[in-house]
Amino acid sequence: MTRDAIEPGLRVRLADPYDGTIEKVTAALKEQGFGVITTIDVKETLKQKLDVDFRRYAILGACNPSFAHQALSTDLEIGLYLPCNVIVYEEDDGGGTVVSIVDPVNMMGPTMSPGLEPIASGVRARLEAVAAALRGAAG
Amino acid sequence: MTRDAIEPGLRVRLADPYDGTIEKVTAALKEQGFGVITTIDVKETLKQKLDVDFRRYAILGACNPSFAHQALSTDLEIGLYLPCNVIVYEEDDGGGTVVSIVDPVNMMGPTMSPGLEPIASGVRARLEAVAAALRGAAG
Repeated sequence: MTRDAIEPGLRVRLADPYDGTIEKVTAALKEQGFGVITTIDVKETLKQKLDVDFRRYAILGACNPSFAHQALSTDLEIGLYLPCNVIVYEEDDGGGTVVSIVDPVNMMGPTMSPGLEPIASGVRARLEAVAAALRGAAG
Repeated sequence: MTRDAIEPGLRVRLADPYDGTIEKVTAALKEQGFGVITTIDVKETLKQKLDVDFRRYAILGACNPSFAHQALSTDLEIGLYLPCNVIVYEEDDGGGTVVSIVDPVNMMGPTMSPGLEPIASGVRARLEAVAAALRGAAG
């Protein structure tokens, strides 16, 4: 495990169990104008495709349509970074759940064109608000 | 337009029309062991959510289950980068179609942990083969 090697995300550790967390995350995203437009059940996918057992883990694709339209109108290739990923997974001991939300500014890094910077910063501010709301609601 | 500002991808310009291209891309991905596990119709989504007109544009989420399992077993946070995006969109004049495939090595850049490097390089080699196959099949 080199879990600390990737830090493009805003991470929240919840004491809550995995069950119900996706619904809480979806509601917190909605408050900030993001819809969940894709959902990948990683555990189920790996079981189906490889017959391996994996922890409960979901990849949600979150999209704020207004920001997405601005970004696509600025740079068509931005679709390579859309939607914004939010991952939800069980901790090792099964006692808690981790939610990590992509940080679009960190992820795009130096490849970002100047026109995208205010958009990416606006998206990050809203995703930070999602993370803060989840932390505030943490039991 | 600052289309050249983002270069994390492997880009292929096809003379073919948009119709049928997603199917060709899906077949080329399958040859390299990638399934398309998510599809976002950007034009339809923007029309539904914002009532704006946009060019035909799709974001495909491609996943090679074996590589994904290796990557997730190395770093749980890698889900922030999964699946691998492949975008397909009409050119301005409507006469051709662009396919851009994410380059996982470029996208992860300096945040990548050493354990992920061989996996990301292996994925990139296969995605380069997809791009080459599409170029070879270009009319």
